[in-house]
Amino acid sequence: MNPQDRNKDLKYYKITDVQKCYVHGRTNINKDEIPLFWNNSGIEICSDASELWIEVEADYSVYEPWYAVEINGALIARSMLMPGTNNICLFRSMSKGVVKRVFFYRDLQAMGQDNDCHMLVKGIYSDGNFKDIPKYDYKIEFIGDSISSGEGTYGAHEDMDWISMYMSSSHNYINMISKKINADVRIISQGGWGVCCSWDSVKENNIPDIYDYVCGLAHGDFNEKIGAGKPFDSSDWQADAVVINLGTNDCTGMTGVGNLTEEKLEQAIVDFLKKLRGYYPNAHLLWVYGMLGYGITSNISRAVTRYMDETKDTNAAYLTLPNTLEDEYGSRQHPGLKSHKKAADVIADYLVNRLG
Amino acid sequence: MNPQDRNKDLKYYKITDVQKCYVHGRTNINKDEIPLFWNNSGIEICSDASELWIEVEADYSVYEPWYAVEINGALIARSMLMPGTNNICLFRSMSKGVVKRVFFYRDLQAMGQDNDCHMLVKGIYSDGNFKDIPKYDYKIEFIGDSISSGEGTYGAHEDMDWISMYMSSSHNYINMISKKINADVRIISQGGWGVCCSWDSVKENNIPDIYDYVCGLAHGDFNEKIGAGKPFDSSDWQADAVVINLGTNDCTGMTGVGNLTEEKLEQAIVDFLKKLRGYYPNAHLLWVYGMLGYGITSNISRAVTRYMDETKDTNAAYLTLPNTLEDEYGSRQHPGLKSHKKAADVIADYLVNRLG
Amino acid sequence: MNPQDRNKDLKYYKITDVQKCYVHGRTNINKDEIPLFWNNSGIEICSDASELWIEVEADYSVYEPWYAVEINGALIARSMLMPGTNNICLFRSMSKGVVKRVFFYRDLQAMGQDNDCHMLVKGIYSDGNFKDIPKYDYKIEFIGDSISSGEGTYGAHEDMDWISMYMSSSHNYINMISKKINADVRIISQGGWGVCCSWDSVKENNIPDIYDYVCGLAHGDFNEKIGAGKPFDSSDWQADAVVINLGTNDCTGMTGVGNLTEEKLEQAIVDFLKKLRGYYPNAHLLWVYGMLGYGITSNISRAVTRYMDETKDTNAAYLTLPNTLEDEYGSRQHPGLKSHKKAADVIADYLVNRLG
Amino acid sequence: MNPQDRNKDLKYYKITDVQKCYVHGRTNINKDEIPLFWNNSGIEICSDASELWIEVEADYSVYEPWYAVEINGALIARSMLMPGTNNICLFRSMSKGVVKRVFFYRDLQAMGQDNDCHMLVKGIYSDGNFKDIPKYDYKIEFIGDSISSGEGTYGAHEDMDWISMYMSSSHNYINMISKKINADVRIISQGGWGVCCSWDSVKENNIPDIYDYVCGLAHGDFNEKIGAGKPFDSSDWQADAVVINLGTNDCTGMTGVGNLTEEKLEQAIVDFLKKLRGYYPNAHLLWVYGMLGYGITSNISRAVTRYMDETKDTNAAYLTLPNTLEDEYGSRQHPGLKSHKKAADVIADYLVNRLG
Repeated sequence: MNPQDRNKDLKYYKITDVQKCYVHGRTNINKDEIPLFWNNSGIEICSDASELWIEVEADYSVYEPWYAVEINGALIARSMLMPGTNNICLFRSMSKGVVKRVFFYRDLQAMGQDNDCHMLVKGIYSDGNFKDIPKYDYKIEFIGDSISSGEGTYGAHEDMDWISMYMSSSHNYINMISKKINADVRIISQGGWGVCCSWDSVKENNIPDIYDYVCGLAHGDFNEKIGAGKPFDSSDWQADAVVINLGTNDCTGMTGVGNLTEEKLEQAIVDFLKKLRGYYPNAHLLWVYGMLGYGITSNISRAVTRYMDETKDTNAAYLTLPNTLEDEYGSRQHPGLKSHKKAADVIADYLVNRLG
Repeated sequence: MNPQDRNKDLKYYKITDVQKCYVHGRTNINKDEIPLFWNNSGIEICSDASELWIEVEADYSVYEPWYAVEINGALIARSMLMPGTNNICLFRSMSKGVVKRVFFYRDLQAMGQDNDCHMLVKGIYSDGNFKDIPKYDYKIEFIGDSISSGEGTYGAHEDMDWISMYMSSSHNYINMISKKINADVRIISQGGWGVCCSWDSVKENNIPDIYDYVCGLAHGDFNEKIGAGKPFDSSDWQADAVVINLGTNDCTGMTGVGNLTEEKLEQAIVDFLKKLRGYYPNAHLLWVYGMLGYGITSNISRAVTRYMDETKDTNAAYLTLPNTLEDEYGSRQHPGLKSHKKAADVIADYLVNRLG
Repeated sequence: MNPQDRNKDLKYYKITDVQKCYVHGRTNINKDEIPLFWNNSGIEICSDASELWIEVEADYSVYEPWYAVEINGALIARSMLMPGTNNICLFRSMSKGVVKRVFFYRDLQAMGQDNDCHMLVKGIYSDGNFKDIPKYDYKIEFIGDSISSGEGTYGAHEDMDWISMYMSSSHNYINMISKKINADVRIISQGGWGVCCSWDSVKENNIPDIYDYVCGLAHGDFNEKIGAGKPFDSSDWQADAVVINLGTNDCTGMTGVGNLTEEKLEQAIVDFLKKLRGYYPNAHLLWVYGMLGYGITSNISRAVTRYMDETKDTNAAYLTLPNTLEDEYGSRQHPGLKSHKKAADVIADYLVNRLG
Repeated sequence: MNPQDRNKDLKYYKITDVQKCYVHGRTNINKDEIPLFWNNSGIEICSDASELWIEVEADYSVYEPWYAVEINGALIARSMLMPGTNNICLFRSMSKGVVKRVFFYRDLQAMGQDNDCHMLVKGIYSDGNFKDIPKYDYKIEFIGDSISSGEGTYGAHEDMDWISMYMSSSHNYINMISKKINADVRIISQGGWGVCCSWDSVKENNIPDIYDYVCGLAHGDFNEKIGAGKPFDSSDWQADAVVINLGTNDCTGMTGVGNLTEEKLEQAIVDFLKKLRGYYPNAHLLWVYGMLGYGITSNISRAVTRYMDETKDTNAAYLTLPNTLEDEYGSRQHPGLKSHKKAADVIADYLVNRLG
C-alpha cells in the first residue's frame, strides 16, 4: 500500500536527501539508495513525527532478507522482507513533537550463497521533522562467523535448518555491546567461514580475502551494480577498535580433509591483523574466541603474540570468551541469548577499560 | 505479492477448509474466514511443508493490529498489519518432510476504541501436508486488563504513548504460562477496564458487561457482520480454569469522581464469579491480583469468600501475585518481562498443583 | 580461653552495663544477662575497637543452640555453641577508630523439645568505645513455623535430620527483609506448629497459646528462672507491622486423625488476630501464606475477612507468597535460599508500600 | 570442653590412626598430627556416627586461622579458631547408621606474615564407624594470589581491613569448581604476590620461589618443626591439571618503583611453567587471568606461547577470565561471589572439556 493513502500529511523523502540520517554498517551509498549489505547495517533517524515509514527494496532467490526495528533502543518488530518494494511502517499514532529515535536494520548476514539477495533503503515517509542523532561514544567493527551472524539466536532448541529466520543481529552480542557502551557497531561476518578456511576445509572461504571490498560476500550482477565489489575505503569511518571473533570454523576445518597446518592458520591470523592495521592505523585490534570451545586458543595466542612482536604493535590483544554452557544454547547448536549476554558483558567491559 | 509467483508448488487452502487447524481464542468462525478478536487468538498448524504463507485481511482507523509468529514454540516474527490483504510468509526454505508447528496470532488486544480495527484469517498457502496438532493438557481462560493485554511488554522504559506497538501477548505472562504447562489459553482483556469500572471511574467500562458476547469490545458494522456481537457460547470449549486478573483499574477508579463504593465493587466481583460459573460449571475460578499494587486486595478477598459462602462453591480461590519491583517495569509504567515471568511462575505452579 | 590473655587492652563489660547496646528479639533482660530465646534474637553494638569478644553462656541436652555473627550487615561466622561459658571473638585486628557495626544473634529457634537449651549473653570484651547504633526505620514482628525458623536454609538437598544445624535466621527471609527495609525484626516461630494445631494434629501445639509469654516455648526450671514464662509485655516495643506466616502445618494437621474442622481453624485465625490487636493497637496485621503450597488459602482468606468485618479493623491484610518451585528447595524438603529471597522481595515491597 | 563429658559413646581416634581419612591440600603428615598449611586444606571423613568432633590445635600472633565445615557438600559452619586446643563438634544428633560426608578445612590462606599462625588436626571423636570416601574424578592444583585466597568473598562492600575474616576458600571459585566437577583441589596462594613480584614491587615476594617447599610461606620455628620447610614431593599426588591464576599483582608491581621489565615478567612465567612441568609431567598447565583486569594479558599470552614453543610442550594453555563487573565486587575491592561463580563456570567447563 501507499502510506499516503491513509495519512495525507506524510511527505516522501528520498533517503539520500535526508541530511539527518545516520547510516550504520559498511556500505556504498548510491545516488538513489543505501544498500544494506551486512547484518546490523541500517539507517537511524530521530524524528518528531507522529508517523514514519520506510521504503525498502528487496529480493532473493533462496535466502530472504529479514529486518528489525528498534524504537528508542527497544526491539519492536522483526520480520521477513518481500521481493520488490516494501513500505514498512516504523511507527504510527505517536505523540507529535516528541522525538523518537528509530533504528531500522538488516537482521540477516550478507548472503554469499544467494546472488539475488539484497536490501536497499530508498526513502522515508514522515509527517514531522528530522532531528539530530545523538553522538556515539565509540566506533567498533566486529568481524566474525555464524556467532556474529547471530545464528541460533532465534528458533527453538531443536531447530536445525540453516535459514535466514534463525540468524540475527537483533539478538546477538554485538547489538548488546552497542547498547551497553553507546557504540556505533559494524559487522562483517559469514556463518561457516574462518580466518583461514571454512568449517568444511574450503580454503577459499575465508574472511580476509573478502574483507577488502565493500561487501565481498555479495555477488552477482545486481550486487555488483550497487557497489558490493568496490574496494573498501576506511577513510571516513575509523574504528576505535576492531573485534575479530574468528577461529571456530578454522578449528573444525583443520580436522577435515584439507591440508591446513597450524603454521598456515597462524600465518593467516598474523596476516589478517596486518591487513586490519592497514585500514585502521589507530584502532585497538582485539581477537576474541571461545564461545563454541577453545580448540585452537593456543594457535590464536601464538599468532597474536607473533603479530605484536614482528610489528612492534602493542595495540592488540587476545581475549577468550566464556564457552556456551549446556543450558545456554539456542537453536542450531549455537550460542543462545544467555551465552551472547555473557560475551557482551566481557567484551563491553574490556573495551570500556581499554579505550577509556 | 502473490506467494505463488515465487513458488509454483504452493497450493492455496481456504482456512475454513483446513481440517487440521487449531483455532486459538474466543471467536466466531464464518464461512470464509476466522476473525481474530482477542490477543493471543490465532491459528495453529503442523505442517511438513518447506514453505507456508497465511492470508490475513486487516483494517483500522487509529489502532493498527499487530501479529506474532511462533515456530515450534519460539517467537520468530512480530509486526504491524497493513490495511487490506496481507500475505505473510510464516516460513520458507525449511526441510520438507520435517513437521513444523506454527502458531500465528494477534498480538494486539481487542480495540473498543477503533471500530475499523479487525484482523481475519482467510487462507493458507502450503507446499506440503497438514499434520495433527499435539494435544494440550489444559484449557485456561484469562480475563484481565492492560496487564493481560501486555501493555508495557514492548518499548523502552520511558515510552508513554498508548499505542498498539507497546501491547502484546507474545511477551505477556499468559503466553508464558501456556508454554510452561502446555495449555491452550484464551484472553479476554481490555486495558484500563476493571470488574466494576475503568481507571477513570466510568462504570460502563467493565469487563462483565461485555463478557457475554463473542467480542463485546469490537463495535461497528464490520465487527458486527463478522460476529463480534453474537452471544458467547461456552459449550464447545469448557475451561479447566478461569483466571481473572482484574482490580487494578477499579482501585484507581474508586478514588476518582465516581460514586463507586466498596460494597458495589465487591458485589461486582461476586456477580462476575457467578456469571463465570454459569458458563463453566466445572472450571476452577482463580482471581489473581497484585502486579501493580495491592490496593483493593481486602475487597477481592472478601468478595471471593462471600461468593464461596453464598454459593457453597469451593472450586474458587484468590491468589496475590508479586508486585512489580522497581527494576521490573517495562514501558508505560507497566510490568515488564521480569514481572510477567514472576507472575507466570506463580500462576503456572498453582494451576498444575490445583488441576493435577 | 580468657580474651585478655592475648590482648591486655581488652576491658570486660557486663552486658547489662553497656548503655549503647541494642537488644534484638523478645526477651526478659535480667540483672546479669540477656537471654536469647528466639532465632534472630541478639545484641547489636557499634564499636571503634580493634577487637571485640562476647561472653555467652549456653547449655542443652539434645538440641544445641547455634549463633551467627554479622559485621556491617554481612554474615561472617556461624557455629554451634558449647555447654558452659563461650568466649567468642567477634572480630580482631581491625582498624581502631573505625566504627564497626556488629550483630551477634541466636540462629536457632526456641526449642520447646529441650528444657536445657538456652543461650545467655553475659558480657563484652572491648579495647575501644561503644558508639550509637543507627536508627531502624521499622519494627516488624514475624510469627511463624519451620519456614520462619529457617528450616532447610542450611544443609544439602537430601539431608532430612531434624536438627539445629539445618535451622537458621541467618539465611531466612526475615533477616533478608530486615536488610532490605532497615527494620528491627523479631521472630516468634516454632517448626511444625500452626495457628490451630501442629502438622501431626496435636491441638496443644499452636502458636497463639504460647504467644502471651516472653517465650512460651522454653520450659524447665532454668528457662523459668531467666523469665521465659513471664507474661509478654508489648508496651516498650510497638510493632509497625506483625507478619503472621502460619497455616502450612494446620493444613497438614487437618487431614490427620484430629477432629479439626475448617470452622475451628478459621476461628483460631480470627481469635489470633484479635489477640495480636490487643498487643499492638496500631500495627498493620499481615497474614502471609503459600511458600509450601496453597492448601488452606481460602480458609485464611475467609478468616481474615471475617476478622476485619467483625472488628471493623481495616488495618489487616492477607497476602499469598510464591510457592517453592522444584529447583528452589533447600534441605528437609523445605524452602531454600531462592524461595526465601522471593518471599523477602514480596513482603518487603508490600510493607514499604503499606507503611510508607 | 571434653566431648566425652556429654556423650560417653564417643571414642577418641588419633587422626594419624584413622585409615579412612582423606587428606586435602599439600601438607606434611607427622606422627601425631596433620598440619593444615593452605586454604582448603583439610580432612574429609565419611561416618555413620550420630556425633563427630575434631580436635584441632591452633595458634597465631596477629592473623588467627579460620575453619569451615561442610556436611554432604553444604557449608554449615565457619568460625575463627582459638589459640590452643579446639574441640569442634562437626555434627550432633544425626541419624546413626546413615553415612554423612564431612569436610573440615582451613578457610584462611597460609600466613607468611605471622610465624605463629598454624593449625593442626590431632584427632577425631566418633560414636560410629569410618566409611569409605567416594573417589574424586580429578586432581587439580590451583596456584594464585588474593583471588585464590578468597579475599573479599566475605565482608560488606565497604570493608577494607586486610584480616583473616575476609579471606576464605569456602566462598571462592576453587571450592565451587571442586563441587562442579568432583575434583580434589589444592590451593597454593598468597594475597599480594605474583609470579615475579608483589603488588608493591618486591621481587622476593613471588610464588615460584616458595613453591618448592611444603609450605614455603609458613616460617618460624614451629612451622619449621611441623615440616613447612621440607622440599615439596609431588610423587604421591599427580595433578591432572595445574591452574595458575597469577599476574594481577605483577601488573601493579610493574608500574611501581621496581625495575621489573616485561622481559623479566615473561621469563618468570616461562620458568614457572617449566618448574611445574618438572613436578607434574602429565598435568595440563592452564594459566588463567583477568578477574581484576587484563593489564598484562599480552605478556602472559606471549610467555605461555614461548614456553610451548621452546619446550614443544602442547599440554598448556592460557585462558582469560571474565573481569569483575561493578555489581560483582565483594569486600576489599576484590571479586565477590558473583564474580567467583563466573570464573568457576569458565574454568570448570574448560577442564571437563580438556581433561575429558
